[in-house]
Amino acid sequence: MTPPDPALLSLNTITTKKWTLAAAIAGCARHGIRGITVWRDRLQEMGVAAAAQSLKANGLAVTGLCRGGMFPAPDAQGRQAAIEDNYRAIDEAHAIGARCLILVVGGLPAGSKDIAGAREQVRDGIAAILGRALQAGVPLAIEPLHPMQAADRACINTLGQALDLCDVLDPQATGALGVAVDVYHVWWDPQLAAQVARAGARRLLAHHICDWLVPTTDLAFDRGMMGDGIIDLPRIRALMEGAGYRGYSEVEIFSQRDWWQRDPDEVLAVMKDRYRSC
Amino acid sequence: MTPPDPALLSLNTITTKKWTLAAAIAGCARHGIRGITVWRDRLQEMGVAAAAQSLKANGLAVTGLCRGGMFPAPDAQGRQAAIEDNYRAIDEAHAIGARCLILVVGGLPAGSKDIAGAREQVRDGIAAILGRALQAGVPLAIEPLHPMQAADRACINTLGQALDLCDVLDPQATGALGVAVDVYHVWWDPQLAAQVARAGARRLLAHHICDWLVPTTDLAFDRGMMGDGIIDLPRIRALMEGAGYRGYSEVEIFSQRDWWQRDPDEVLAVMKDRYRSC
Repeated sequence: MTPPDPALLSLNTITTKKWTLAAAIAGCARHGIRGITVWRDRLQEMGVAAAAQSLKANGLAVTGLCRGGMFPAPDAQGRQAAIEDNYRAIDEAHAIGARCLILVVGGLPAGSKDIAGAREQVRDGIAAILGRALQAGVPLAIEPLHPMQAADRACINTLGQALDLCDVLDPQATGALGVAVDVYHVWWDPQLAAQVARAGARRLLAHHICDWLVPTTDLAFDRGMMGDGIIDLPRIRALMEGAGYRGYSEVEIFSQRDWWQRDPDEVLAVMKDRYRSC
Repeated sequence: MTPPDPALLSLNTITTKKWTLAAAIAGCARHGIRGITVWRDRLQEMGVAAAAQSLKANGLAVTGLCRGGMFPAPDAQGRQAAIEDNYRAIDEAHAIGARCLILVVGGLPAGSKDIAGAREQVRDGIAAILGRALQAGVPLAIEPLHPMQAADRACINTLGQALDLCDVLDPQATGALGVAVDVYHVWWDPQLAAQVARAGARRLLAHHICDWLVPTTDLAFDRGMMGDGIIDLPRIRALMEGAGYRGYSEVEIFSQRDWWQRDPDEVLAVMKDRYRSC
């Protein structure tokens, strides 16, 4: 396996949660980081046009926009509102030249225990926005989330399940629909190797990295820096590369008790170092 | 679907954590609960012979012994110690007439990131004890644990994976090896229906119930009482019955912040009520 290419490191801006998008762009420039994935709240705060200009001026590859999805809702009106919000997300992704729109698909609608029904709503939601995404040239990346987030964040919980959905909605593998492989969500999956191989280069749209801490103290906001946990990161990177993935490795760390408390410049320095060593 | 049979309700003694085993047996008698699953620490505290006598005198079905497993270890000595402890667990299960020994198989050995290797150690560990279990007439129930516990508690994380292991180690489906289906661990699995059907009556050794709370505040000790969360319990019970399961429904609730704080007599009253209504 080749060592990690420093030119293929990307910052997901949630990792430096304190920073505005302008500050994150400047931080990437300062630390020689060449890729960035942007969250929509910070994008809107900066203004889409200003952000697009700054990202371009700084030569940053926009590895993704976080996030579309959140399709299930208790009624048709709610589901339509979600679809319209996804249209706006696609437009924003197009405006900043994002390589994909990350879909966190949503969990159970309020009051529901019907996870099969929620999954149907997700399928229908993606079907409704796929044409717009294709037209805009913005691939949609379904991100399977860890099963511990199935109820409240995303009812697509394995790579196999996400790829089944891709096969149903985009049987020709046009490039308009694929998956984001976040090590935090999939490291435990006994089918991981088989499903990454099945996805192949056409479906592998993003690779997110961080680590799983032992113990983990929160179901959403206690991720670790690469090397501080138990995920075999080189193995998963090798699976991705073996399947033809040639894109960025994007550091996405939700960490209420640790990394979000630190100076973001320190976070960037550590993540560059760990990207090389882990 | 038939309504739940009150005669098939079982108490897992962890649900009434404050109680000694003697107190739990008396509690079941007081509340007309006919089944009980026993934890080994409480069993040893009471003494195996005394417990066996009291369980029998009270006419309780011993629906399981918790727990064997915990096979992976950093070295051969540790793995052998685990196997010997499982032998003792089988003997204890036999002594109290338990219908199965629950296997929580263990996670990554200390210092390891090799989950595939841990899974091989689990396979070898179960292979090493299966003959003894068969001889003792104590079926082994592999319990797939939720993927959020893959690192520290059990690296078997889906029903499909557990059944693959059953097929490898007990291809004849002798009845000596099967699975425990705990709703908390499997409710999210898109393959749940298919895998329960695949298991069939020969492999379905136990059914554990509780609920998944939203939000969940701890990865191990924040389970809910049936009806307080988002699991579609009637659907899963129907799957079990459809596959031929005719055994008990066992209430197993780890709840540091709520149910463990309450008077265990209240817990038993509520669980009887919720078993009927949920």
